[in-house]
Amino acid sequence: MAEEMIHDNCGVFGILGARKAAELTYFGLYSLQHRGQESAGIVTSDKKHLHLYKGMGEVSDVFSGEHAFDHLKGNIAVGHVRYSTTGASSITNIQPFLITNRDRMLAVAHNGNLTNSVYLKNKLEASGSIFQTTSDSEIILHLVARSKGIDNFSKICDAVKKLKGAYCYLFCDEDRIIAARDPWGFRPLALGRLNGHWVVASETCAFDIIGAKYERDVEPGEVLEISSNGLRSEFPHSKSRHAFCIFEYIYFSRPDSIVFGENVDKVRRRLGRLLAREHPTEADIVIGIPDSANTAALGYSEESGIKFEIGLIRNHYVGRSFIDPEQKIRDLDVKVKFNPVKGVIEGQRVVLVDDSIVRGTTSKKLVQLVRQAGAKEIHFRVSSPPIISPCYFGIDMPTKGEFIANQKSIEEIRKYLKVESLGYLSVKGMQAMPSLPDDDFCVGCFTAKYPLNIEAISNKLRLG
Amino acid sequence: MAEEMIHDNCGVFGILGARKAAELTYFGLYSLQHRGQESAGIVTSDKKHLHLYKGMGEVSDVFSGEHAFDHLKGNIAVGHVRYSTTGASSITNIQPFLITNRDRMLAVAHNGNLTNSVYLKNKLEASGSIFQTTSDSEIILHLVARSKGIDNFSKICDAVKKLKGAYCYLFCDEDRIIAARDPWGFRPLALGRLNGHWVVASETCAFDIIGAKYERDVEPGEVLEISSNGLRSEFPHSKSRHAFCIFEYIYFSRPDSIVFGENVDKVRRRLGRLLAREHPTEADIVIGIPDSANTAALGYSEESGIKFEIGLIRNHYVGRSFIDPEQKIRDLDVKVKFNPVKGVIEGQRVVLVDDSIVRGTTSKKLVQLVRQAGAKEIHFRVSSPPIISPCYFGIDMPTKGEFIANQKSIEEIRKYLKVESLGYLSVKGMQAMPSLPDDDFCVGCFTAKYPLNIEAISNKLRLG
Amino acid sequence: MAEEMIHDNCGVFGILGARKAAELTYFGLYSLQHRGQESAGIVTSDKKHLHLYKGMGEVSDVFSGEHAFDHLKGNIAVGHVRYSTTGASSITNIQPFLITNRDRMLAVAHNGNLTNSVYLKNKLEASGSIFQTTSDSEIILHLVARSKGIDNFSKICDAVKKLKGAYCYLFCDEDRIIAARDPWGFRPLALGRLNGHWVVASETCAFDIIGAKYERDVEPGEVLEISSNGLRSEFPHSKSRHAFCIFEYIYFSRPDSIVFGENVDKVRRRLGRLLAREHPTEADIVIGIPDSANTAALGYSEESGIKFEIGLIRNHYVGRSFIDPEQKIRDLDVKVKFNPVKGVIEGQRVVLVDDSIVRGTTSKKLVQLVRQAGAKEIHFRVSSPPIISPCYFGIDMPTKGEFIANQKSIEEIRKYLKVESLGYLSVKGMQAMPSLPDDDFCVGCFTAKYPLNIEAISNKLRLG
Amino acid sequence: MAEEMIHDNCGVFGILGARKAAELTYFGLYSLQHRGQESAGIVTSDKKHLHLYKGMGEVSDVFSGEHAFDHLKGNIAVGHVRYSTTGASSITNIQPFLITNRDRMLAVAHNGNLTNSVYLKNKLEASGSIFQTTSDSEIILHLVARSKGIDNFSKICDAVKKLKGAYCYLFCDEDRIIAARDPWGFRPLALGRLNGHWVVASETCAFDIIGAKYERDVEPGEVLEISSNGLRSEFPHSKSRHAFCIFEYIYFSRPDSIVFGENVDKVRRRLGRLLAREHPTEADIVIGIPDSANTAALGYSEESGIKFEIGLIRNHYVGRSFIDPEQKIRDLDVKVKFNPVKGVIEGQRVVLVDDSIVRGTTSKKLVQLVRQAGAKEIHFRVSSPPIISPCYFGIDMPTKGEFIANQKSIEEIRKYLKVESLGYLSVKGMQAMPSLPDDDFCVGCFTAKYPLNIEAISNKLRLG
Repeated sequence: MAEEMIHDNCGVFGILGARKAAELTYFGLYSLQHRGQESAGIVTSDKKHLHLYKGMGEVSDVFSGEHAFDHLKGNIAVGHVRYSTTGASSITNIQPFLITNRDRMLAVAHNGNLTNSVYLKNKLEASGSIFQTTSDSEIILHLVARSKGIDNFSKICDAVKKLKGAYCYLFCDEDRIIAARDPWGFRPLALGRLNGHWVVASETCAFDIIGAKYERDVEPGEVLEISSNGLRSEFPHSKSRHAFCIFEYIYFSRPDSIVFGENVDKVRRRLGRLLAREHPTEADIVIGIPDSANTAALGYSEESGIKFEIGLIRNHYVGRSFIDPEQKIRDLDVKVKFNPVKGVIEGQRVVLVDDSIVRGTTSKKLVQLVRQAGAKEIHFRVSSPPIISPCYFGIDMPTKGEFIANQKSIEEIRKYLKVESLGYLSVKGMQAMPSLPDDDFCVGCFTAKYPLNIEAISNKLRLG
Repeated sequence: MAEEMIHDNCGVFGILGARKAAELTYFGLYSLQHRGQESAGIVTSDKKHLHLYKGMGEVSDVFSGEHAFDHLKGNIAVGHVRYSTTGASSITNIQPFLITNRDRMLAVAHNGNLTNSVYLKNKLEASGSIFQTTSDSEIILHLVARSKGIDNFSKICDAVKKLKGAYCYLFCDEDRIIAARDPWGFRPLALGRLNGHWVVASETCAFDIIGAKYERDVEPGEVLEISSNGLRSEFPHSKSRHAFCIFEYIYFSRPDSIVFGENVDKVRRRLGRLLAREHPTEADIVIGIPDSANTAALGYSEESGIKFEIGLIRNHYVGRSFIDPEQKIRDLDVKVKFNPVKGVIEGQRVVLVDDSIVRGTTSKKLVQLVRQAGAKEIHFRVSSPPIISPCYFGIDMPTKGEFIANQKSIEEIRKYLKVESLGYLSVKGMQAMPSLPDDDFCVGCFTAKYPLNIEAISNKLRLG
Repeated sequence: MAEEMIHDNCGVFGILGARKAAELTYFGLYSLQHRGQESAGIVTSDKKHLHLYKGMGEVSDVFSGEHAFDHLKGNIAVGHVRYSTTGASSITNIQPFLITNRDRMLAVAHNGNLTNSVYLKNKLEASGSIFQTTSDSEIILHLVARSKGIDNFSKICDAVKKLKGAYCYLFCDEDRIIAARDPWGFRPLALGRLNGHWVVASETCAFDIIGAKYERDVEPGEVLEISSNGLRSEFPHSKSRHAFCIFEYIYFSRPDSIVFGENVDKVRRRLGRLLAREHPTEADIVIGIPDSANTAALGYSEESGIKFEIGLIRNHYVGRSFIDPEQKIRDLDVKVKFNPVKGVIEGQRVVLVDDSIVRGTTSKKLVQLVRQAGAKEIHFRVSSPPIISPCYFGIDMPTKGEFIANQKSIEEIRKYLKVESLGYLSVKGMQAMPSLPDDDFCVGCFTAKYPLNIEAISNKLRLG
Repeated sequence: MAEEMIHDNCGVFGILGARKAAELTYFGLYSLQHRGQESAGIVTSDKKHLHLYKGMGEVSDVFSGEHAFDHLKGNIAVGHVRYSTTGASSITNIQPFLITNRDRMLAVAHNGNLTNSVYLKNKLEASGSIFQTTSDSEIILHLVARSKGIDNFSKICDAVKKLKGAYCYLFCDEDRIIAARDPWGFRPLALGRLNGHWVVASETCAFDIIGAKYERDVEPGEVLEISSNGLRSEFPHSKSRHAFCIFEYIYFSRPDSIVFGENVDKVRRRLGRLLAREHPTEADIVIGIPDSANTAALGYSEESGIKFEIGLIRNHYVGRSFIDPEQKIRDLDVKVKFNPVKGVIEGQRVVLVDDSIVRGTTSKKLVQLVRQAGAKEIHFRVSSPPIISPCYFGIDMPTKGEFIANQKSIEEIRKYLKVESLGYLSVKGMQAMPSLPDDDFCVGCFTAKYPLNIEAISNKLRLG
């Protein structure tokens, strides 16, 4: 989307048995960077000890120290990238977390968000547990430590049964990686192989970069141990409906990944095609907001027969380091990020495709930019329905009141954006585009109907 | 191009009379960042003094200091971005250069490369001049200082007559900006207006970001003074042929710029169209190497009727900070930079369009990447002719022996790249694509025929 | 001492009720910087929440961020400086630690070392506690969390009873500071007042910098609550002998502090005087190794009547950033740190006073330096006995085998150092110099006899 | 002095013929760090090329980069440390300066200040020279470049004849170092040997650190070539009186250096002795403001028979990074820098010795600190006369109006400082303390009488 108002929480990666495990994990995290840019960390095991290196910043910053990899010995590695709020105090929240327990070590990396975290935390504290982070990712470690299971695998099977909400965990101890995915399957978690070594990652693009092959997903509800003895799998939960996050297809995942068993690119293109069918228009060119909406725009173009064009170019030099010396000069933030190609746009009737609209402020500026570049008409098309409700399963969104679709009708939004026409994809249509059954998805952010009850959540109680 | 083997030297920007001149220059440089990422600087005049702030790094890094703009007082500003070799010693080469002369100050920012610099330098040194940088941009300051002209404008008119080669200068003194462009017009330099204030920049994309309007080019051979009295123009040179750098269209300039009076995007698209006519093929999809070759790929698609696809995605997180912890793992550099979209490529016959090939090593890896993503056939198309000779007019290229086209025949290159077919655009065709007459261009890198004699140049003598 | 082989673990500071509590704590920590240079942190309470800011580095580095103090709201503050091993992973060990427990927060800062930490940790883990740091300072938080006490004060009284070893804790919750000192009193902890506000600190020099007045020590075995209701004190332990660390007088504490109720400077001077009586010599001048041995050298001078001189100057520019580009050139480390004043030393018979000798390697180089400056004779005097056994109560020392006094006899050390004579202070004499009874001190590092049993400690099991 | 209001401009170091010349220069600069902490640089020659590495910051910061010394090839090296104003623009002023001239390179490092720089600069500019720095150190390079001498040695002999003011230059070309000292001899420059290799440095402490031996001073007016052919010396100037800077003895030079042929420590002690004779008092202890006034305090103690004490300890952790989060809390700057030892001071009549008073503000705070530590009486003694006039020969001082001695009488200063008595050393006495004749010194800052005419100097015209 044009705005960066929505943030995924995390990406995880693990590999067992490979030489240079930490380095491979580094590359894996690198390709998952879009899932979290605020901190990164890797834990390795050399069979005797676990070694941890983590810090604030993007993957390449965190591991730019000369000796980062000297420290990370061993053939087992688990890594994590995270979106988080900044500030020196939050360094305690950087993952993986590492604990010691009776002279054994256990590390965990988590992607997701628990919905019964307050309940669990209260209960644990009542019996003497202390919490040192403000992340709900710490809870599982307490549950594991209190389990009577005979080994980490059985303890984890035991512990995850108490959880509600979205989670993909990668645990690492001296000898194994244990992956655990919630029974609803909110977040993706894929299993692959690299020269006989098992690899797990949030998205398959992390396999591609190191040359690993996708085998299958860690299944919803599965607890999967990866060790030198091979795989060991259990499904400790009672059966649940599936609730794959459809936003992974809409926006988050990289188009070159396979997510929930399907090419993201293909789903995204079908969304664009359907969008063209639901909201056709007379126009000369189709332009996508780069990079996330380009695929949907190609789909729109194919279906409508209107020519696809690259009319907006994303500036490669815009990073977090961008500073605006004079914020009042004018609304330069969008201009700094996107370059409209006047030669393409001038005098044209333009279909402008974005994947979603959150608050609408950036979309409005972008429309203005395209208009100034000479567009005769602008037909705004969105390859997802209006967002009306926040996500409780691992995606950081503004509060309900900030969504433009809660403040204005479609026609009012059209006027606000100053476009000739505006069309959102229907919920029904969106759900139909992946190959999986419609009700295998969580579409709560578009419908306010969630697959499981949400614990009363206030800013105060929410863990992070 | 896929490789980053070719570097432009510089981008320049100037503005006179506007409030927040330094801040506007910052944004201008930001949009010219593609012309040089190694250092940046801005000089301003508050009518009494000149103020200079410059450093190594990208624009947003250099000016990230809290007080950078406090220092840059005044309504006149000139900025510079530069590609240069790294190393602490080279901080002396960061532009703009600022000198004092009889209690007056003069600053200069330069884009280009002089071809008689050794001759001029020897002559100046023989009469007592000392050189403190290794940049040929310093020469003009000595020539100006030694001129008997009555003011800076007449001194500069006098000085530029002694120069041979490529240059766009922006001078700044207490009261004015003076722009000077070589009579051949190698590098672009455009003149615009922002609310009545004159603006000059290497490319018009720098006008767009601040909302300025393109008026005309500073003409080849023109010396143009911009002051509170308006414009004053002279053509001190005898008449020369034009020699616009065609590589600005092929690769350097941003597609949203107007360069040499024409939309870069439109020329680039015509190059792609002609490429399709010169080297047609049977295929399913056309893919451009992002971002520079996307426009040519669109042109190829339009002409051939073969569907355009986004099959390679450029990783936004790859910056200079990327470190490769284990260079021997495998050829990860290309994988880190480009993500092939398997869902798009798999089973397809692919036309892969790049704008140029220099050494060929990266192209080869990229072909392999596309092949691994499942391409059935790969037809490599290049929207420029084979590069066979270095540039002496401001573009930093490898030495002659490193160009693959000097080592191998087209068929041998095809085999080396391991593609089903390979086609380069013809020189004749390339020259015909812009609206200007064919012989208004310098195409020396493709033909080894240059528009003016090159001083014997060795690595040793070359200044910068 | 000349070497920096011995490190104290920590310094703590707390203040309640004062405006700018965080800023005052910053200055307090600044003056305690000699007790730990590797990390620093401050936690504050604004009655509703606790706010934490901490990081690796010296106090002024950690809090150099612009907004460090904006974050630290409230009138209650507790700070900590720490010596620790470096490395990104150890950021988890930076204190204060902060936990949440049933929506209440509790922070703790610790100076000391527990001797039954392994036992306690095993017991806690057996009932489900998890440990996230490798610091034994975490244990107390678990004990507090598991206590059935009605408030933090009673919980802490309850928890400290389980501990053995050296500790000075400063706890901070929303409403109060609670200080707790072990019944042996190993480490100092002083109570003061600033305009009616209570202040606690490891040394009184932290009172001086902010203008606070020393009132009394937090007594061995005391748990002291400081709140808006004033003081509340309990002594939950059964009676123990005292075991004040004599090394605080010898080396650690600042000479301008009052420690264990006595001016450090005065004790240190008495040590120097007695040293002169126990090991008199014929000489021309007395020189102390700056800065720590200067006071003892003054004492030696007074007693012996031999003139005190400043013959060695400590280089102010040596920090941790010093790098030695060519370690093999020669032994430059000592030369970089100390400048001998040839004019003072040349031709003289020198008494060289240091406060202690650990491994002896630096002492040897220093003797050589003084010899090269022209000393005719060098009589080395040490204002403490030979160190023969490590400390288990909060001071980081080399292992037993590394102490030179365990490898060589006094005469052999004399030969190794290449000095004319060598004299160490006697244990008996050392103990007699403070005003307190001899057996109120722990002198274990000089006698290998400790005031309480040490849990079998291996590198592996040791927590911190 | 207590204040840091006075700054020396520079320190220089050179060595020829030694392996690891750059590393030895690094250590030499390190020991000269007190002469300038704002920037540092080293140039080396490998007989073919000169290599330069320089940057802002202290020596160990500038050369902390991994590859700093890889770059600095060759057996000839010249280094420079500098005090300068900060700011990104001033990076152009970091020395050594390096120029190319007819394919030969020449570098220069300068300590001093020219008094006819404006005249020379105007003249040079009138005939076409351009100036790229705001440092007067650039002038000599232009003069050398314009000389008709047959080699660098004869050119430099020619060029220095045109200069007035204070200078010690170290030039470095491909084959030699050429040292040049002004005929008045304002700044020190010493010649030494290390294993047969010649070394030059501002102070002999730079010889001690690398183990070199002091041979003699580069004499006032001498131009000295050091090459593989040995030494070559000329005295191109007509005879001048000597004007050694007496402030080098009072404050600047390190006490362990030999400066102007004499031990700094010995002169400084004699100043203290004379101070006791000129201004005796009844008192219990003598305390010096560390570190610079300690030696004078020892002299005072010896002469008066009053016991020397270490009553103020300088905080080793105060660096430029110190930030004061709340400047209004109270005057903490002095408290942060100096720790008074109450046990020493309490109830005592104290002679407080400083080497000089500039503005008096810090002295006042320091007196207050000593008073708060319990001093019964404070007798302030200054081992130099009142400063009344700025230095034009290389020392950076406040403007005339800021000197307290220009605002108040001695008695008024005493009242301002709130001390029982105040005594400054007499000019006559001060001049008598070194072994050299009285009128061999420049004492202009104490008398406003200078050894040569000062060009009208305004802030505007002053170059550096």
